[in-house]
Amino acid sequence: MPELRKDPVIGRWVIIATERAKRPDDFAGDRGVRISKGFCPFCVGNEDKTPPEVYSVRESGEPNTPGWKVRVVPNKFPALVSEGETHRIKEGIYQHMNGVGRHEVIIETPEHTKFLYNMTSDEIKLVIETYRERYLALKKDKRLRYILIFKNYGSEAGASLSHSHSQIIATPIVPKRVSEELYGARNFFSKSNSCVFCSVIEREINDGRRIVFRNDHFIAFTPYASRFPFEVWILPLRHSAFFEEISDKEIEALTEVFMYLFPKYYNVLNDPAYNFIIHTAPTQMSGKWPSIEFDYHWHIEVIPKLTRVAGFEWGTGFYINPMPPENASEFLKE
Amino acid sequence: MPELRKDPVIGRWVIIATERAKRPDDFAGDRGVRISKGFCPFCVGNEDKTPPEVYSVRESGEPNTPGWKVRVVPNKFPALVSEGETHRIKEGIYQHMNGVGRHEVIIETPEHTKFLYNMTSDEIKLVIETYRERYLALKKDKRLRYILIFKNYGSEAGASLSHSHSQIIATPIVPKRVSEELYGARNFFSKSNSCVFCSVIEREINDGRRIVFRNDHFIAFTPYASRFPFEVWILPLRHSAFFEEISDKEIEALTEVFMYLFPKYYNVLNDPAYNFIIHTAPTQMSGKWPSIEFDYHWHIEVIPKLTRVAGFEWGTGFYINPMPPENASEFLKE
Repeated sequence: MPELRKDPVIGRWVIIATERAKRPDDFAGDRGVRISKGFCPFCVGNEDKTPPEVYSVRESGEPNTPGWKVRVVPNKFPALVSEGETHRIKEGIYQHMNGVGRHEVIIETPEHTKFLYNMTSDEIKLVIETYRERYLALKKDKRLRYILIFKNYGSEAGASLSHSHSQIIATPIVPKRVSEELYGARNFFSKSNSCVFCSVIEREINDGRRIVFRNDHFIAFTPYASRFPFEVWILPLRHSAFFEEISDKEIEALTEVFMYLFPKYYNVLNDPAYNFIIHTAPTQMSGKWPSIEFDYHWHIEVIPKLTRVAGFEWGTGFYINPMPPENASEFLKE
Repeated sequence: MPELRKDPVIGRWVIIATERAKRPDDFAGDRGVRISKGFCPFCVGNEDKTPPEVYSVRESGEPNTPGWKVRVVPNKFPALVSEGETHRIKEGIYQHMNGVGRHEVIIETPEHTKFLYNMTSDEIKLVIETYRERYLALKKDKRLRYILIFKNYGSEAGASLSHSHSQIIATPIVPKRVSEELYGARNFFSKSNSCVFCSVIEREINDGRRIVFRNDHFIAFTPYASRFPFEVWILPLRHSAFFEEISDKEIEALTEVFMYLFPKYYNVLNDPAYNFIIHTAPTQMSGKWPSIEFDYHWHIEVIPKLTRVAGFEWGTGFYINPMPPENASEFLKE
């Protein structure tokens, strides 16, 4: 019989539909056709085909020339633009605002055929360090309230270029999905006087069935109320609401998680498209989240694109997942 | 400059990204390859390849034989099963429940090549009448709280069979996305003493730019804070919280809307995949929504699948829409 499960943080129900597909091969997707041919603006030597870099880690060379290892540029087609002030304008029942914000692309490697599944640990570490670096830089812009770091890998996950990259979008308002999570965490804290994510970690360690990988600083597991087959959450063991407070040691440990997880996805799921998203606290709290350092806990959610979101999910916010997380973690540990 | 817009019902922000794609042809998708070849369990003559029908509209014949015009069968791979009681079980921080509910498929036509874009008005009317019929039948099951009627059209929208069909899933809990809308509507009502959807209708009629089609009973428009290119909402002009109270006259008028909209999608957008979802009130109110008949207003949301939901949307619940709804409605009126 299918089972309904409730996410302990935001109260979202999922249907774990046990009567459906079961093996990793049972899922469709655009796999195995990832590496684009033809011209690539992110490749080394094509630095003039992107907007000028705002940051890079280099072995040599001037900005916007070869010699870089990681390169950060403004998005050429930004969802939000950096100039201007934020104003909310009400027109009767409708409300709008200038699309002010930041939209950057982190080009993770100069090489067109390197990805998170075949990079060296030094290369991955550099990517995560760059996330922290750019987060700290953008945090200084007081017009912005939230900084989202995420990755779209593969066209089904929304990537328009195959060359390995991540993105940062910083918004002048705290997004709804983020507030929901913050409210959920605060409610849990006010009832039980403990962080819901710390409680989840404790529970997962005691249970063990859903753990995919673990080291001294991080745990990676398939969440109890997984929305998607092979969804994985990565949580720091040390309680902290703020991604940007990640220490060098933790960056090394997170690199180890990536070095385990992404080759596993590649091998077990045949190079699936996926998104990952760093969930962290807003940058400007304006008194709205007084206890956030106690009740929130930053983390990463990784969602492979193996099933399609259909009418039922759109209408209800209620996901149907044909792969119990207990089975998914087995495959990812094999 | 991109514009941020806020949905007046649930407070969701979208980015109308004016720097991006613009013409209907600029959007990718799996178009023009819809009609499957080979064996189809929904075709006339294959009635024994589905679970036995629970309802049909027939010209002739016994149940589960040819002669039907519309046929409703339980889903062969149900997300929820009809037998059993609903129990919530708490295990520490986690909560689960039996997957009890209903999952039916409405086979809209015996013909494999008929779709909403090329059916006659009598055929479409029969489909909508069947929605009402099954809604009223399932409403009698007191274990259920919410009945969702929806359609996945095209594989990108989650349809696994091409033969024209809709689905009904009835759940033992009111889904989160539905509650959000109900709360949003109630908040608006308590502030302004009017239904938010009635206010939207008034505003859209006065403005006019986003209206796609209108008759005596319905209005179809591209919403102010559209999440997706060519998203269309269909609202009954008469205030009513309950889809099942749709009158015969209104069914005729809604048929007219469908007869306009789906051929337009087919022609202007080259047969895009889409989902549509009927948003209506829960069936069992249990005192939780005392004023729902005043503050809620049933409607239909239609979302073509022309863009992909990517990391940013997953992380924020904040959509990037490259097609301003004012332009989309122009194309749909051409």
